[in-house]
Amino acid sequence: MGQVRHITLPAGFVAAGVHCGIKTTGAEDLAVIVAEKSVPAAILTTSNQVVGAPVIQCRKILPKGYGKIRGIVINSGVANVCTGKQGLTDAENMAGQTAKLIDAQAGEILVASTGVIGHPLPMSKIRRGIAAAVKSLGRGNDSSVVRAIMTTDTKEKSAVVQTRIGGETVTLAGIVKGAGMIAPSLATMISVITTDAKIAPSLLYRTFKAATAETFNAVTIDSDQSTSDTAIVMASGLAGGKIQYGTSAHRKFEDALEEVCLELALAMVRDGEGATKLIRVRVKSAATKTDAAAAAKSVANSPLFKCAIHGRDPNWGRIVMAVGKSAAKVDPNKLSVSIGGTRVYAKGQPVKFGHRTVREYLKGDTVDVEIDLGLGREKFTAYTCDLSGAYITINADYHT
Amino acid sequence: MGQVRHITLPAGFVAAGVHCGIKTTGAEDLAVIVAEKSVPAAILTTSNQVVGAPVIQCRKILPKGYGKIRGIVINSGVANVCTGKQGLTDAENMAGQTAKLIDAQAGEILVASTGVIGHPLPMSKIRRGIAAAVKSLGRGNDSSVVRAIMTTDTKEKSAVVQTRIGGETVTLAGIVKGAGMIAPSLATMISVITTDAKIAPSLLYRTFKAATAETFNAVTIDSDQSTSDTAIVMASGLAGGKIQYGTSAHRKFEDALEEVCLELALAMVRDGEGATKLIRVRVKSAATKTDAAAAAKSVANSPLFKCAIHGRDPNWGRIVMAVGKSAAKVDPNKLSVSIGGTRVYAKGQPVKFGHRTVREYLKGDTVDVEIDLGLGREKFTAYTCDLSGAYITINADYHT
Repeated sequence: MGQVRHITLPAGFVAAGVHCGIKTTGAEDLAVIVAEKSVPAAILTTSNQVVGAPVIQCRKILPKGYGKIRGIVINSGVANVCTGKQGLTDAENMAGQTAKLIDAQAGEILVASTGVIGHPLPMSKIRRGIAAAVKSLGRGNDSSVVRAIMTTDTKEKSAVVQTRIGGETVTLAGIVKGAGMIAPSLATMISVITTDAKIAPSLLYRTFKAATAETFNAVTIDSDQSTSDTAIVMASGLAGGKIQYGTSAHRKFEDALEEVCLELALAMVRDGEGATKLIRVRVKSAATKTDAAAAAKSVANSPLFKCAIHGRDPNWGRIVMAVGKSAAKVDPNKLSVSIGGTRVYAKGQPVKFGHRTVREYLKGDTVDVEIDLGLGREKFTAYTCDLSGAYITINADYHT
Repeated sequence: MGQVRHITLPAGFVAAGVHCGIKTTGAEDLAVIVAEKSVPAAILTTSNQVVGAPVIQCRKILPKGYGKIRGIVINSGVANVCTGKQGLTDAENMAGQTAKLIDAQAGEILVASTGVIGHPLPMSKIRRGIAAAVKSLGRGNDSSVVRAIMTTDTKEKSAVVQTRIGGETVTLAGIVKGAGMIAPSLATMISVITTDAKIAPSLLYRTFKAATAETFNAVTIDSDQSTSDTAIVMASGLAGGKIQYGTSAHRKFEDALEEVCLELALAMVRDGEGATKLIRVRVKSAATKTDAAAAAKSVANSPLFKCAIHGRDPNWGRIVMAVGKSAAKVDPNKLSVSIGGTRVYAKGQPVKFGHRTVREYLKGDTVDVEIDLGLGREKFTAYTCDLSGAYITINADYHT
């Protein structure tokens, strides 16, 4: 629980996480992350048709998904989803109060909430929490910030990547909370990334979208999609030269941003509800990128496949089944499957393989599955975790 | 385990189920169901792109999905899926031997297999089994027939419905095996329905498709789709007048066939892996039928929702989430949800309701969830079961 620096490591950001009284455990439950001045920012939110009040508020502030903001206020413990008009007012007030205390405009503060659904925010606690957090803003609070956005996450999840742009070191740092659950809430992903790179809001948005396509958007815990998923990046512009589209600086920045997102995404999967293993489902030789993603995600979402991996069973039949039911173009006679580098199914035919070797491999905490569609050149990797009895316990046996 | 009549109750059919040595338990594992002469039949098979050899063989025999056949031979214990060319030859030989022994053409016998995937059929056992079954063909074996198609099904599942057509009693009877599992196999549905109704093959097919749309095709155990799903209906024509399209006799026959399919579908869900409850997810007031089905199936497939019902948690947030992530058109402000007749969410607003009452209701073995989209007149009911720790145990902890 040492004060590891991450979210405030890029120049120009301060943050604080406090306990305002929502979590009964006494753990941090409210965080404020602020840029010292108005900075370019980009936001991606859930594609679920039912969205929480904080998501609606964020979309009001950044309707195109990018613009300039000062910061974000986040609470955990109550999601402020399905809370009607009161929820919208509460989200607005959270942002408004934070803005006022840091001398920003109300339209410069984003807001996110995660936790129980259908309950109103305890606004007096939140108001006290915002006041306390703003008072504590600084560079030594990063661990309390990441703890403040956690629900049933079991680990603090952060990532730092540095790259050289314009002869200077540019830092990117991110935190994420993953598929945690406080019944009766939803699994919710929230991620905040800060960087001192110098980049225009629209290009930041475009780069962020690209960097999440095969990282955050390649992750599935249980196929259910939150009403609150929110990922935000803020760029203070205090390090490196101005990043222009299509330059090598842009490529380096995109690579670094993708690296941060991938590291956070994998940490989220490893800490998925009941997870004991990270599973990488790599589809190659697909006719199109869309096919590759569809096949990989179908396998990654298959409960039968995930149970088999949990049970260390080299059950390639379930992999073939899940590929076959996907929307991807599949020729059964060209389909091959490997588990941990061992070919178990080749061009539509079962293969004799060392079951003991594969079972031994499946004892590890990372499992690689490769599916060769034999139809083209496109590939996609989906990331998921195994499905264990603990997932059921977390989601069924713990009552509201 | 008495000899309850079902599959041979309609006039013109004989059947037998025997133990040929595939199942190590000594239970029946091979069934032959035969019409006394060539009769109209219709078949529906999985839409998975990877299909087992028996499905390929059936499609070869009935390329349009209907025609005239003499019967079907089914084994359990080995699925004959992903078995390459040998699998196709084996399926052909199963049909060929059965045809020969009952004096039929090879092209008049359908074939189905369910069980382990990727293993060749033990053909010498199967050959002995077919010979024994054909010798035992009769009207007193229905229980052994239904047991012979079971894998990890815990209950014999059958249905009988009678209706009056042309002044005569017409009988429809069906058996089904459901989401059973012998690792490393797939959940596989096989259903055989017999009737003594008089109906042309093409109309039988059309009626069967209609009768399964909101019965077999409204069922989901775990969102995974088998490579072997097969449903067959045979009509001996020995009772009632000839059924013509669009007549009241046709409507009565379709209603009766739908009733058989629904009864079998519900029995299959109740006997789903690890299931303790039947859940009926009814979506109403959808803009289109497609929307109603998409929303209902999204909820029925949501592992979070299914865990909540298992845990007797009136977690309407997960229902709203699953509706929102579906392809159905949704207006969050018009969305309402009831559980067991208790309104828990009304037009986008949480509702105060008796948690204790709903929890008490959720102790029952049948759970009704009603979702009102408030957008139109279409409706659809999806059928599923709860997700329990036993599902994980069956599919992860029991090894190959």
